[in-house]
Amino acid sequence: MTDPVTAEQAAAGTRSAGAATPAEHRAMARARALGWSALGSTSPNPAVGAVVLDAAGAVVGEGATRPPGGPHAEVVALQQAGARARGGTAVVTLEPCNHTGRTGPCTEALLAAGVARVVVAVPEPTGLAGGGAERLRAAGVDVVVGVERADAEDGALAPWLLGLHEQRPQVVWKVAATLDGRVAAADGTSRWITGPVARAAVHRLRATCDAVLVGSGTVLADDPQLTVRDDAGADLPHQPLRVVLDRRGRVPAGARVRDAAAPTHLSAAADPAALLAELWDRDVRRVLLEGGPTLAAAFLAAGLVDEVVLHLAPQLLGAGPALVGGLGITTMADALQLQTLDVTPLGRDVQVRYRPTRHTGGAPRPEETTN
Amino acid sequence: MTDPVTAEQAAAGTRSAGAATPAEHRAMARARALGWSALGSTSPNPAVGAVVLDAAGAVVGEGATRPPGGPHAEVVALQQAGARARGGTAVVTLEPCNHTGRTGPCTEALLAAGVARVVVAVPEPTGLAGGGAERLRAAGVDVVVGVERADAEDGALAPWLLGLHEQRPQVVWKVAATLDGRVAAADGTSRWITGPVARAAVHRLRATCDAVLVGSGTVLADDPQLTVRDDAGADLPHQPLRVVLDRRGRVPAGARVRDAAAPTHLSAAADPAALLAELWDRDVRRVLLEGGPTLAAAFLAAGLVDEVVLHLAPQLLGAGPALVGGLGITTMADALQLQTLDVTPLGRDVQVRYRPTRHTGGAPRPEETTN
Repeated sequence: MTDPVTAEQAAAGTRSAGAATPAEHRAMARARALGWSALGSTSPNPAVGAVVLDAAGAVVGEGATRPPGGPHAEVVALQQAGARARGGTAVVTLEPCNHTGRTGPCTEALLAAGVARVVVAVPEPTGLAGGGAERLRAAGVDVVVGVERADAEDGALAPWLLGLHEQRPQVVWKVAATLDGRVAAADGTSRWITGPVARAAVHRLRATCDAVLVGSGTVLADDPQLTVRDDAGADLPHQPLRVVLDRRGRVPAGARVRDAAAPTHLSAAADPAALLAELWDRDVRRVLLEGGPTLAAAFLAAGLVDEVVLHLAPQLLGAGPALVGGLGITTMADALQLQTLDVTPLGRDVQVRYRPTRHTGGAPRPEETTN
Repeated sequence: MTDPVTAEQAAAGTRSAGAATPAEHRAMARARALGWSALGSTSPNPAVGAVVLDAAGAVVGEGATRPPGGPHAEVVALQQAGARARGGTAVVTLEPCNHTGRTGPCTEALLAAGVARVVVAVPEPTGLAGGGAERLRAAGVDVVVGVERADAEDGALAPWLLGLHEQRPQVVWKVAATLDGRVAAADGTSRWITGPVARAAVHRLRATCDAVLVGSGTVLADDPQLTVRDDAGADLPHQPLRVVLDRRGRVPAGARVRDAAAPTHLSAAADPAALLAELWDRDVRRVLLEGGPTLAAAFLAAGLVDEVVLHLAPQLLGAGPALVGGLGITTMADALQLQTLDVTPLGRDVQVRYRPTRHTGGAPRPEETTN
């Protein structure tokens, strides 16, 4: 039987020096998805994904970064591939490390497995772990770096890359509002603004984060548990850190956020930057900001929101708190500008993701580099 | 050369009694688009679209309802088709009329042209013009009624059908807001909340309406001209009626809304229902409500909004007027519920269309009926 991947490669003539083949591009998309599935469990390490193809281009191993102390993505994928990795290709979202930390260098694992080629999306930006591509090439491995780099940088690697540049966690602000921008009715009731599909999506989003953050006002008003639950309502095994900004010590002893279902950190930090510094020191690299209008306004005014996830409910209230408090903006020309990233229907609701455009974080984006 | 439509019909075996063929379904979609292109210029008549296929299934004529006094859609399409209509099929969004009003009966025009078959989406609901299908069948024409009926009822025929049931114009509320639901900044500035692509879409939307409605507050704040302009900023030949609710006579003589570019009606109506009655008497069947939060709240509270077109801008203000004023709603359970119809990116902005779900208007939807 003809291998379809090989036939496709032959037809397209794409397995030339430097460029990635169609099978490698498909493997890279899968590697990004694998990295995303590990996001929330790898910090302070990056959430990397890896796919191993055999010499004929068939997938023989998949892996994602295990929690700190566990193996890196390449090693997981190589273990699954076993002897089939020999002469094959490793496709990985981040350049394999070349140093011994809590685990051995991934470069040596790749050489020991006998892979002939390594396809990388993002070059390792740290001096400590760098030199992986160079080490592999010196050993005769064909290495391509920069394949679909921007997609990988915008995906599961984004929090880690932002952390390298800004020494703070990535902040994702999630807010559910009516179409007139209300997060609650005049009497304070807010259940339910969004429907079950959007609420399930919030749990999946929480699972990708190292911490979930609210203010004490939200705890007093709604008494949320802030855990990650599955569709049946059961807590998942891995839970993000629950963080409450509680400068005045208002969170009662019996609040659900203090129960045993997940770790909790009550902070008295003076401002958003100080709070993020506390979380950074606890190895938090991605925070879901779920607080009310006041907390959201403080983070936005400080330029400390990296992404906005709006769940827009098809309801009108005409009164009640707006989704963000005062930002000190009085005229249209000074409005805080965002970029619309994507729009996703979620049952009866609509999700829109934004990125504030005045934010200066993120990694530089040079052209793809190849050997 | 084999006619692809005929080949497709033969393969699918769909040209059986009653059902529409693939070519007829394509023609019906085109007829709906033709009807939509006439919306805003036909009131108080329905905006109908018609396509004539020759005996082999090829399109030989297209038409839409001309302004009152002009020919109906079928007649326009038959004129274009000429002798090629003989033995062919007329595909039309509304059952052909069988009475003589300002124009002669369309049934007689179809019989004179020698069409063998007529495919109809929506049966004529008025006794006055009804009986068209019956008249055609009596003359030996094959007639199918109810093809893609719901799509036609939701399209360009919706205002006319609503008018038949409720004796009032259809009301479309268009509002542009920041993602925190603000329609202006704290100092009253609102230019520009949305970008050029969304603003061009508003002009196309205005062109489908018989009237554009604002309150005197909007005139005093923004001095809008409320005309329909093309992408180059030039006024189009057909302009909707400009309506200002101005109970206190506040609109100044020099307001742009009073210029010669389009007709203007200043109303002192006591409430939304009274205003719509005034417009109904002026043959208005579709109104674009572009007023501020107070006027929008009055129409919503009265249950007189049929569709909401939200243009959501990727900006945050944190202060300024909300997109709708008080609705008398104090708790979440009483929120005004809507149904999300569709989501469309418009440049940097996002359009979401909604239908209030408590509204009881619209035509009944029996199953498709065939002969």
